[in-house]
Amino acid sequence: MTVSPTPVFRGVVPPVATPFTPAGEVDHDALASLVERLIADGVDGLFALGSTGETAYLTDAQRVEVARTIVRVSAGRVPVIAGAIELTAPRIIDTARALAAAGVDAIVTTAPLYTLNSEAEIADHFARIAAAIDVPLWAYDVPVRVRTKLSADLLVRLGVDGVIAGVKDSSGDEVGFRRLVAKNRASGSPLTLLTGHEVVVDAMGLAGADGVVPGLANVDARGYVALWRAVEAGDWEAARVEQERLNELFEIVFQPSGFSPDATGVGAFKAAMVARGILASGAMSPHVAPLDADAVARIRAVVAAWQPVAVDA
Amino acid sequence: MTVSPTPVFRGVVPPVATPFTPAGEVDHDALASLVERLIADGVDGLFALGSTGETAYLTDAQRVEVARTIVRVSAGRVPVIAGAIELTAPRIIDTARALAAAGVDAIVTTAPLYTLNSEAEIADHFARIAAAIDVPLWAYDVPVRVRTKLSADLLVRLGVDGVIAGVKDSSGDEVGFRRLVAKNRASGSPLTLLTGHEVVVDAMGLAGADGVVPGLANVDARGYVALWRAVEAGDWEAARVEQERLNELFEIVFQPSGFSPDATGVGAFKAAMVARGILASGAMSPHVAPLDADAVARIRAVVAAWQPVAVDA
Amino acid sequence: MTVSPTPVFRGVVPPVATPFTPAGEVDHDALASLVERLIADGVDGLFALGSTGETAYLTDAQRVEVARTIVRVSAGRVPVIAGAIELTAPRIIDTARALAAAGVDAIVTTAPLYTLNSEAEIADHFARIAAAIDVPLWAYDVPVRVRTKLSADLLVRLGVDGVIAGVKDSSGDEVGFRRLVAKNRASGSPLTLLTGHEVVVDAMGLAGADGVVPGLANVDARGYVALWRAVEAGDWEAARVEQERLNELFEIVFQPSGFSPDATGVGAFKAAMVARGILASGAMSPHVAPLDADAVARIRAVVAAWQPVAVDA
Amino acid sequence: MTVSPTPVFRGVVPPVATPFTPAGEVDHDALASLVERLIADGVDGLFALGSTGETAYLTDAQRVEVARTIVRVSAGRVPVIAGAIELTAPRIIDTARALAAAGVDAIVTTAPLYTLNSEAEIADHFARIAAAIDVPLWAYDVPVRVRTKLSADLLVRLGVDGVIAGVKDSSGDEVGFRRLVAKNRASGSPLTLLTGHEVVVDAMGLAGADGVVPGLANVDARGYVALWRAVEAGDWEAARVEQERLNELFEIVFQPSGFSPDATGVGAFKAAMVARGILASGAMSPHVAPLDADAVARIRAVVAAWQPVAVDA
Repeated sequence: MTVSPTPVFRGVVPPVATPFTPAGEVDHDALASLVERLIADGVDGLFALGSTGETAYLTDAQRVEVARTIVRVSAGRVPVIAGAIELTAPRIIDTARALAAAGVDAIVTTAPLYTLNSEAEIADHFARIAAAIDVPLWAYDVPVRVRTKLSADLLVRLGVDGVIAGVKDSSGDEVGFRRLVAKNRASGSPLTLLTGHEVVVDAMGLAGADGVVPGLANVDARGYVALWRAVEAGDWEAARVEQERLNELFEIVFQPSGFSPDATGVGAFKAAMVARGILASGAMSPHVAPLDADAVARIRAVVAAWQPVAVDA
Repeated sequence: MTVSPTPVFRGVVPPVATPFTPAGEVDHDALASLVERLIADGVDGLFALGSTGETAYLTDAQRVEVARTIVRVSAGRVPVIAGAIELTAPRIIDTARALAAAGVDAIVTTAPLYTLNSEAEIADHFARIAAAIDVPLWAYDVPVRVRTKLSADLLVRLGVDGVIAGVKDSSGDEVGFRRLVAKNRASGSPLTLLTGHEVVVDAMGLAGADGVVPGLANVDARGYVALWRAVEAGDWEAARVEQERLNELFEIVFQPSGFSPDATGVGAFKAAMVARGILASGAMSPHVAPLDADAVARIRAVVAAWQPVAVDA
Repeated sequence: MTVSPTPVFRGVVPPVATPFTPAGEVDHDALASLVERLIADGVDGLFALGSTGETAYLTDAQRVEVARTIVRVSAGRVPVIAGAIELTAPRIIDTARALAAAGVDAIVTTAPLYTLNSEAEIADHFARIAAAIDVPLWAYDVPVRVRTKLSADLLVRLGVDGVIAGVKDSSGDEVGFRRLVAKNRASGSPLTLLTGHEVVVDAMGLAGADGVVPGLANVDARGYVALWRAVEAGDWEAARVEQERLNELFEIVFQPSGFSPDATGVGAFKAAMVARGILASGAMSPHVAPLDADAVARIRAVVAAWQPVAVDA
Repeated sequence: MTVSPTPVFRGVVPPVATPFTPAGEVDHDALASLVERLIADGVDGLFALGSTGETAYLTDAQRVEVARTIVRVSAGRVPVIAGAIELTAPRIIDTARALAAAGVDAIVTTAPLYTLNSEAEIADHFARIAAAIDVPLWAYDVPVRVRTKLSADLLVRLGVDGVIAGVKDSSGDEVGFRRLVAKNRASGSPLTLLTGHEVVVDAMGLAGADGVVPGLANVDARGYVALWRAVEAGDWEAARVEQERLNELFEIVFQPSGFSPDATGVGAFKAAMVARGILASGAMSPHVAPLDADAVARIRAVVAAWQPVAVDA
């Protein structure tokens, strides 16, 4: 197998959940099954070690093992991009090299964490990382976690300079995303632009997104594949119908009460994966509080009341 | 003329700019001309005394006078909704009654300013205002100014309870807006939902918005009317083309450098209105710094390079 | 009686609570009694219509009436400064003139609310207000309510230019306050600097504060007078002892659970005032949720367990 | 040499700067000289690998090397506490064990970074780390970097439970710090409380701090030692005089213009250390923009105009 030097990340690129055993270990068998299922359901790529993948709670060694499993199972059928989530460039480079050595096709990272930097320093941060690794670099814009909003001007300049190949936008800023699309196009489209917001894919597709990184695809990848095919076909009414169907499923994340955002979001996905038979255990990292029985029951009820997209036989 | 007891605010409802004379007085002749032009260009309603109308910088007396002029000129051809922007319910009620007495068809207001309230207190705030006025009440969600984000749950509950008739959403939160649309529909659509973000009207229309409050329509109302007609027709490609054309014009707001957000936004709109012959003076409230010659020149260049939508003769 | 043209606000200047009747009206008799009591307890000035005075929930007419009562009862024995809390300069000027006409000796206001301004615009804001009124102007720095932090550079420049006479600092930023003290002193001390944080008066006195605006003085003014006398005497150990005694009383504000900050803070003060026999009713503005019986009981328990400062007979 | 099982961190515990060569390598010789000088100047402990030490920009290997150098040079004369700044508990544990193996006497860490957790999860985070390491754990409260404010209730509970031995408070929240002091005392003082704000040490000492972690001590440790001795003696006027003298030196951090907070703060300290002959190079991590000549000249001018404390011969 030869990995393309320019892997294409477009369409549906789910952030792969990291299954845990009830004892708190990464469950690589369950991870392998999940990857196999996602590919069978037609996804266009895999996003390893993102927020949904609980990467922040994994040690360096666990991260590499997770990347290896995903790379091994995907076996070149779809490209794999992996998050290198660390404080600053020198530390990200160490992580990114280890992940690239594990076989991932691209790396995605954020602005520095913890430190207080200027936009010029942030640009330099991405440039230093890109220069130090052998695979394409993407930028991940997620201000709710990083505090820093990456501006459209910065991102497009990094694209024009060949520093980054794309952006995963989880900023929740539809106005900024629209300007990013326009500026990118005006500069020859150096960037591939994926939205991280799984509940507005139809609208973001109309606005010019190249794809989506939907955490909810761990629960229903087929729906997102159907949705994106409608976007590609310009069938916006069909896209909207499918989006609204998926959004009914997304109500799972509003069922837990009194839990942290991390416990609520990933916890709801995993509980719904159990309800749909995708996982045997909904265990999260032991560093996140498990959902209670009431939350799980409410999530199961949402799943039970919901109809997946019909798929042609 | 009889004003309908349930005025309909859908489609294009521009926040009317408030022209000032260079001496710092409200220019009612220019305001009258602007209103006449907006109606001639086909707008569906008028939003008086919003942020774009510099209402925060107007005295009580000036606010009433502005409302009177807009009501007089519109003369029932389109409905008028007016902002009552004040600290708390008892003060908003005083302002709202004065504006209703001036003839506006509905009132829109925000969560309390300055105070630190619970969601229950905010719900009570809207209920007390609605009970004290004779025209429909709308909620204005603009956390960048108010600090408070109004939740979808709160807004739909206020709609179901008959407290508010609609929402102007300037939250910049596409994910929250989508959930608001879904919850409103599931509750029988008690609310009319207008987006305040003029650069994503096509996408918000696809997502289920009932209309838009575009500040940029002061510069080009015809474009927004054409855009919204495409949305209504379900012609999403045409809507996108028109949105992208308008977004090129919206680049005017990125031309000033070193000015406050208020000076930049309204200042750019007014400078472009002068460039297009809509206003004789780009003066803002004397409490906002005027744009410098460089900013104005750059704005004029954006306008000069831009092509308005073709309109059938 | 002749009011001094340069009223002195130093030492203990409590923000006077605004008593309400259970029916929701301002209780001017109770207000008069409270003012009389505060003066008898030795305060150095009165701060009318601040956050503790629930001024944001009062109409224009109510504000003037409250100012009149406080001015009438204080009768020149101590100076009165009044908050003019409104959106922007033209509106603040209207309010400030009405309050000055009611007899207050100085006006205090914040940066603009709701609007989005530059530091230059904020400087101009204070300058325009100062130029339009006949009494000294103070700046009130309370970013938790206003969003804007007033910088030490801005404040001292406004002092040097004669725009403002003093600052009430409720920023919670001890580092910034220390720099404000140093810069003010280096510029000839044009500003009088009062801290709004009643639980650190000893430390702020050591740091160079000229006085305090303690909401808690509505519950125990004598304690703050004793504390400030120790500060003036340079008896820092005595100041600390008295501060710590007052801080035990301040635990009242941590007793309510599930209420808004406004309900919690003012509500706790008023409940404790009832417990100490200072007020007959703990009613707040009807626009704030009343504390529940559990919160009131817990507040009463704190008051009961607490020992006021011994006062010489 | 036997390290005490309960190292005492009180008084002046400077966050040791990490010198870099102009080529971007950690300069261990310069670091050794700096440590020697700090101890000679009378500091009570050393805080390795804090924000001032640019720890966020160091790789795992560099962190261990820096800890080793500081431990080796200090040689048990003063205790050493080291920052383990990482995303989450499993990753912090790896880092903390490596630093403990390098010989540091205690570990300090923050709430999780990047993740979105509840207070219960944050309590569990500290408990898991404490259980996994053989040296005492401290909590570092620095919301400007971490986003999370650690509450007084949480911290004191962790102290009572034996999870943490102390707190470095860089929250800038004087009111919260005062409550932390009171609650800690009421619980038998399980926590040692150090303030990270070097410009208010006199006031924080009066308020009950047990010591200070002053970045500025890298430039003038003797001043802080003199200041803290005055605090210990209860000579508050002398403490204030010395604090104000140090604050004149602290003006160095306001000299750079247009740089990031990280470049400004650490850059100013290092430039002043060069001006005082403490370092040969003011180089920072290559991931931070170097100060320009103008900033350095202005910093040198502040240092030149400033008088260090007189020290008895």
